[in-house]
Amino acid sequence: MEYKFSDRVSNLKPSAIREIFKYAADPEVVSLSAGNPSPDAFPVNEIEQISADVLKNNPISVLQYSVSEGYTPLRKTISRYMKEEHNTGSESDDVLITSGAQQIMDLCSKALLNEGDVVICEAPSFIGSLNTFRSYNARLVGVKVESDGMSVEDLETALKNNPKAKFIYTIPNFQNPSSVTMSLEKRKKVYALAKKYGVLILEDNPYGDLRYSGEYVPNIKSLDEDGIVIYAGSFSKVISPGMRVAYCICPKPLFQKLVVCKQASDVHTNIWSQYVCNEFITKYDFNAHLAKLRQIYTKKARYCMDLLDKYCAPAISYNKIDGGLFIWCDLPQNIDMLEFCKKAVENKVCVVPGNAFLTDESEACNSFRINFSTPTDEQLEKGIKILGEIANNW
Amino acid sequence: MEYKFSDRVSNLKPSAIREIFKYAADPEVVSLSAGNPSPDAFPVNEIEQISADVLKNNPISVLQYSVSEGYTPLRKTISRYMKEEHNTGSESDDVLITSGAQQIMDLCSKALLNEGDVVICEAPSFIGSLNTFRSYNARLVGVKVESDGMSVEDLETALKNNPKAKFIYTIPNFQNPSSVTMSLEKRKKVYALAKKYGVLILEDNPYGDLRYSGEYVPNIKSLDEDGIVIYAGSFSKVISPGMRVAYCICPKPLFQKLVVCKQASDVHTNIWSQYVCNEFITKYDFNAHLAKLRQIYTKKARYCMDLLDKYCAPAISYNKIDGGLFIWCDLPQNIDMLEFCKKAVENKVCVVPGNAFLTDESEACNSFRINFSTPTDEQLEKGIKILGEIANNW
Repeated sequence: MEYKFSDRVSNLKPSAIREIFKYAADPEVVSLSAGNPSPDAFPVNEIEQISADVLKNNPISVLQYSVSEGYTPLRKTISRYMKEEHNTGSESDDVLITSGAQQIMDLCSKALLNEGDVVICEAPSFIGSLNTFRSYNARLVGVKVESDGMSVEDLETALKNNPKAKFIYTIPNFQNPSSVTMSLEKRKKVYALAKKYGVLILEDNPYGDLRYSGEYVPNIKSLDEDGIVIYAGSFSKVISPGMRVAYCICPKPLFQKLVVCKQASDVHTNIWSQYVCNEFITKYDFNAHLAKLRQIYTKKARYCMDLLDKYCAPAISYNKIDGGLFIWCDLPQNIDMLEFCKKAVENKVCVVPGNAFLTDESEACNSFRINFSTPTDEQLEKGIKILGEIANNW
Repeated sequence: MEYKFSDRVSNLKPSAIREIFKYAADPEVVSLSAGNPSPDAFPVNEIEQISADVLKNNPISVLQYSVSEGYTPLRKTISRYMKEEHNTGSESDDVLITSGAQQIMDLCSKALLNEGDVVICEAPSFIGSLNTFRSYNARLVGVKVESDGMSVEDLETALKNNPKAKFIYTIPNFQNPSSVTMSLEKRKKVYALAKKYGVLILEDNPYGDLRYSGEYVPNIKSLDEDGIVIYAGSFSKVISPGMRVAYCICPKPLFQKLVVCKQASDVHTNIWSQYVCNEFITKYDFNAHLAKLRQIYTKKARYCMDLLDKYCAPAISYNKIDGGLFIWCDLPQNIDMLEFCKKAVENKVCVVPGNAFLTDESEACNSFRINFSTPTDEQLEKGIKILGEIANNW
């Protein structure tokens, strides 16, 4: 049998990161390539209590079919919490629960993109989302990321040159992979440009709660008076990624289409995990939990930067980070980045080659991404020491 | 803001069944419209034990990110179980865990269908799957269902007339909504035709384990020597639908594409629920559990048919069923089916209008579907009595 795949997936490759995970499964390999939350960060006891309770007292409520929109109490909790804490969402918006934020990218693509439509992305950007857009045969147009967020000049050029642009995809806080945060001034400019050109903004904010220094910047969605921003939030980094629970706050007409798409995708999200998230936020001190996570990761981020200073200078440089889970490292021009990453794997350290995050992977790139939330302190030191040795002895 | 939706979803409507659920939420309404397993059918104590255990002893294993292919022990368990019990799956196949069987329809559509490609479906067929195919702008061609499965003559005509057909979608056991089971002879003929025309078969088998009478018929996948059958199995009807765990057994080249599509859809399926399914099958007596389910539903199915005989004859006729969760009821020609369903809702009984299951909903249809697994015995009697009164007094 000769399988005839659809045009949209014929050229789709497995995610470079998830492929690298396979090396990372080797227990001898130090993986700096993942984006997993630290095992210390899971509210294990609370999840255990909530689950035991509901499975004892009301099991059918979490085991039976549910509605595609999501567990109603969780939708209400998110709506209230995001309004109170982040001025995010309005009367014109609704909340959809999804199976991870990846599904928000998938449902928005399905609902909005015809084949050949354009998605404007930060370059570099999160490979998982880029692959979702690619899987709908969208054309990706990259806008370079500066130290305060995407270049506004390049964005306007991209909008002018691409009348088929449907939305701008951005991770404004501690962007994956660059860890850059977009300034408030730029958020306002990006919003104004989207409005001017009649294009939506897809604001992906998985790391917003993980700020370790610097000042809070309001979400782009908090500026939304015109119904042009789709906000993607997630519990993967702040409760548990294995549960696959995320939420989309978006204008009601779009919400209705996303619900229809979700019905046709996976009917509804796992209901036990929706219940756990809702109980955890409403019955426990969620903000205290977030403060604890920041404490864990602040320590880890500083430790990682100290190691980079100690072992990797001068060959490897990086920008100090204010939050998130990643550090974007630059190699000097004389070192071939892909060769470097290969040599790292041979020496049992996994990092992600920077070009994996580009809209065009064949473009030149001399950076790589490391993650500090998953490895132990010992693994971090071992891995970074090896990276430094390879780079400094090149 | 004027939202410009993609062509593929512009005409997509919310699932009629899931919309009907909203009436069904009214506690005064007797819902015969759902497809929910009976609350008695969930292995509640076992799920409670398994969850308590893993959340106490190895919580990170079910809360952390996992791989897109699915939890490896569960994939192995399914592979072994389906081979031993149903001769289903071979060395050339692999097993993908999905977020409900709906996601199998979604991933297969994504991987196989270009816009305008044809999916050959039984008419009537499961509306959820039809809507998924529609959400990829596929063209649906219906083949009428006879008492022993789809018409083989009509299938060959459809294959001849539609060179862009990519797969044949069939529910061979206790089909939703007709409850018809395809005979072994027809399974062989359908397989031979698919092979002759170079078209895949997507075999959806959510109800196979729920046989109450008659003889076991082998899966079409068990006949597959050419790598042309994609098998969709699910734990929704036999463990819990709220968990959203299903599995796809398919040829390896297709498996690899589906994994890439799943990475871009929801990364991976909820890992706690995958773990629970695997423990339940391997550590408990799964076949005894299935026998218990058959006992529950046999009783319920017979009770429902008795009620139909008692209250609905002669106006409403139906075919005796051998398994599954649905009974397909026919109205006499003088009763307008949609008017009947509307009148039923006014009298606080929900059923699903038969045309919802057609590839072309505007076609004439004088049938409706009822479900007997969700309502209590009292609700069943109350609801069916009202249906009988409406029909017999028309």
